Amino acid sequence: MEYAHFFSADTGSFLRSPVREIFKRVDLNAIYSFAGGYPSADTFPLDDIKALSALVLDKYGARALQYGATQGVPELRQVLSDRYGVPVERIQITTSSQQGIDVCTRILTDPGDVILTSDPSYLGALQSFHSYRADIVGVPHTEDLAAFRAAYVSTITALRAAGKWIKFLYMIPDFQNPSGETLTLAERQMLVGLAEEYDFLVVEDCPYRELRYEGEPVPTMYSLAPDRVLHLGSFSKIFAPGFRLGWIFGAPQLLDKIYVCKQSLDLCPPIFDQYMAAEFMGSGRLDANLARSKELYRSKRDLLLQMLAQTMPEGVSWTHPEGGLFLFLTLPEGFDSVAFYDKALDAGVAYVAGSFFHTRGGRNTMRLNFSFMTHERIREGIQLLAKLLHEVL
Amino acid sequence: MEYAHFFSADTGSFLRSPVREIFKRVDLNAIYSFAGGYPSADTFPLDDIKALSALVLDKYGARALQYGATQGVPELRQVLSDRYGVPVERIQITTSSQQGIDVCTRILTDPGDVILTSDPSYLGALQSFHSYRADIVGVPHTEDLAAFRAAYVSTITALRAAGKWIKFLYMIPDFQNPSGETLTLAERQMLVGLAEEYDFLVVEDCPYRELRYEGEPVPTMYSLAPDRVLHLGSFSKIFAPGFRLGWIFGAPQLLDKIYVCKQSLDLCPPIFDQYMAAEFMGSGRLDANLARSKELYRSKRDLLLQMLAQTMPEGVSWTHPEGGLFLFLTLPEGFDSVAFYDKALDAGVAYVAGSFFHTRGGRNTMRLNFSFMTHERIREGIQLLAKLLHEVL
Repeated sequence: MEYAHFFSADTGSFLRSPVREIFKRVDLNAIYSFAGGYPSADTFPLDDIKALSALVLDKYGARALQYGATQGVPELRQVLSDRYGVPVERIQITTSSQQGIDVCTRILTDPGDVILTSDPSYLGALQSFHSYRADIVGVPHTEDLAAFRAAYVSTITALRAAGKWIKFLYMIPDFQNPSGETLTLAERQMLVGLAEEYDFLVVEDCPYRELRYEGEPVPTMYSLAPDRVLHLGSFSKIFAPGFRLGWIFGAPQLLDKIYVCKQSLDLCPPIFDQYMAAEFMGSGRLDANLARSKELYRSKRDLLLQMLAQTMPEGVSWTHPEGGLFLFLTLPEGFDSVAFYDKALDAGVAYVAGSFFHTRGGRNTMRLNFSFMTHERIREGIQLLAKLLHEVL
Repeated sequence: MEYAHFFSADTGSFLRSPVREIFKRVDLNAIYSFAGGYPSADTFPLDDIKALSALVLDKYGARALQYGATQGVPELRQVLSDRYGVPVERIQITTSSQQGIDVCTRILTDPGDVILTSDPSYLGALQSFHSYRADIVGVPHTEDLAAFRAAYVSTITALRAAGKWIKFLYMIPDFQNPSGETLTLAERQMLVGLAEEYDFLVVEDCPYRELRYEGEPVPTMYSLAPDRVLHLGSFSKIFAPGFRLGWIFGAPQLLDKIYVCKQSLDLCPPIFDQYMAAEFMGSGRLDANLARSKELYRSKRDLLLQMLAQTMPEGVSWTHPEGGLFLFLTLPEGFDSVAFYDKALDAGVAYVAGSFFHTRGGRNTMRLNFSFMTHERIREGIQLLAKLLHEVL
C-alpha cells in the first residue's frame, strides 16, 4: 500500500537524528561512544530514587498516579520557583525539555518564518525547527563582541530587507551543544538588546546550566528580559533523563498559548515523575548529587582535554568547555568527518559529525561527549580515534 | 508587551478544553463531578506499584533512568506484542495516547484537510484536529446500517465534489467518549470498506477497550485492515494515568514517520514509566487488577443507570454503555446544557456539556462519567442533578 499521498507537508521537512540512527545501529556499550549526550549512569542517584519512589507513593498516594494539571503539579512548580526565584505563574512543566523546544516552535512559527540561531546549534532543536518548515539562519560565534554584533545585525537587516519575519533567536548560552562554548554577559546583553531593537523573541535553552566545572555563573538571558525570553530547563542532566521532565519560564501570555497547546499534545506531564523530581529537588538531595556529578564530569573533561593534547595530530584544535557534556573538535580544512565516520565506527569509536549541527559547512568538525563513558574508556577511545586520524591526516 | 504578532497561524485555532478549565475552577473532590474522564483512584494498584518500583530499579537499574529508544523500550513493545498479537515492528510507544492522536494528526494533516469523525467525538481529539486547522466533519450514528453507510457516503461524496481531501476517519469504536456507544462488527467492516473504497486512513482510538462489563469483544478495526488503520491504546485506564503511556499499532511506513516526528517532540517516552508498565502487564498483575476494576466500574455503571431511571424527568434519555467510563444524556429539544452548567456547578454538581463534543449542535446533551466518584457520591450527585433538572423541565 502507498502512503506518500497521505502525509502532511511538514513531513517532507522531517530530519532524522543521526545520533538516534547510531543508537539503532550499534550497542552504545560495545563501542567507544563519544556520540550521544547521555549522562553517566554513575550520576543517577539510584538509592535516593528507591527511597523517593516509596516516599512519593506513601506521601501522595493516588495523586501521584492520577491525571494532573496541564501546567504541572503545584509542588514541582513551587520547588522550581523557590530554587530559581521565578513566580509560579511563570512556570510551565514540560514532558522533557525537547518538548519545550517543540512547543515554543509550534506556537511561534509558520512555514517560512525565520529562526535565528548559533551556527552550530543543537540538533534536536534544528529537527524541531525543520519540522515546522522554518527558515533556520545560523550565525557563527566570533570572539570580538563588535564583530559578533555586526554579524547579527547584517543578517537581520538582510532578512528584513527580503521581507522575512524573524520570530525568535534560539540560543544555548551555557556550555553550548555542540560547541561547549559559553556566552559572556556582554554577549547575552547584546543579543537581548537586538531582540528588543528588532522585536523578536528569544528561546534560551539551558539544559546544562547547573553543570559548571569552573568559573562563575553568567546571568541567564531570561533574567535580562523576562518578558522577551522563554527559558528552558531540564531535569535530564541533574536528575535522570528516564523521567522525561523539563520546564519553561516565560511571560504568562506566552505560557497561556503553550498551556492550551500542551492540552492537545499530551494533557499533562508524567505525574509520578513530577513528584519524584519535586521531592528530589526540594529535599537537598539534588544539590548533594549535583556536587558529586560535577566532580565526576570535571575530571572526565580534564582527562579528555589532556588526552587530546597528548594524542591529536597537528592542525586539530578543540574548545575548552567550562561545563556541560561536550567539546567540539576542529580538524584541518578539507577533512570530512561524515565520510570518516564509517571508518571510525568500524574500528569501534563513535562521534557525531559536526556538519549535522551546522546550517551550512562544518564538515571538518566533530562533537565529542565526555559524560557517558568511564575514564578508562575515554582514554582508550581517544587513543583509538587519534590513531585513526593520524592515518589520514 | 504585545505578543499577538508572534503567534503562529495554528494558535488561532487552538481550543481550550472546557473540562480542564473546570478543573482549574473547582476542586474535583469538593463537588459531585460527573465531568472528567478520571479513573477511580480505587483501581490504582498502589501496593503493586510500590513493589514494582523497587523491582524495576533492582532489575533494570540505570537503564530505567537513562534515555531510551524513540520507539519505546523493547521490553514494553514485546509485552504488548505478546498480549495483542501484533508484531513488535508495528508498535510505537507514545507519551500518552493523547500524543498518539496528536502525532497521527501531525503527520497526516495540512490546514484544510478533512478529518471525518463521529458526531459527537472525543474532545481531546477535536482539540488536536483544530490545532492543525483541519476541517472536522462529523457524522452522527444511526442504528440502521444502510442509513449509517448512506450518511457517510453522501458526506464523502459532497466533500470530494467540493475538492476536499479526506485524510482519515477518527473513531472510538468501543464505549465511545462521550456517547458510551460501541460499533458493531458490521459497522466497523462498513467503515473500513469505505476507507478502502475512497482511499482514506482510519485512526482507531481504543483507550477503554479492556473495560468491557457485558457482552463479547468486537474485533478492532485494525484487525480488519492493519495496513489502513492506526490503532491507539492507552495505559491510563488499565494501569494509571500518572504514568503517561500509550501505544500505536500500524504499518511500518506510517510508524516510521511517527518515529521521526517523535524524535523532535520529546525524544522518547518516559523510561521508568515504561518499565513499570512492562512489568505490570507482563506479570499478570494487570489482568488481576483489571478484573477488580471492571467489577467496580460495572457496579458504578449499574448504579448510575438505576439512579437515572429513578430520578430523571420525563423526556430525558440516555445510552447504555457496555463498558468504558461514560454515558450520554439527551434532554428535551431546547434545553441548553451550556447555559445550565453554571447553575449546576453553583449547586455543586459538574458534567460536560454535550455541545463541546459535537461539530455542530448537541446543546441538549451532556456527558456523565461514572468511574471517578464513589457509589455514594454518584447516588447523591444524580439526586442533586435530577432535582435541578426537575426545576427547569
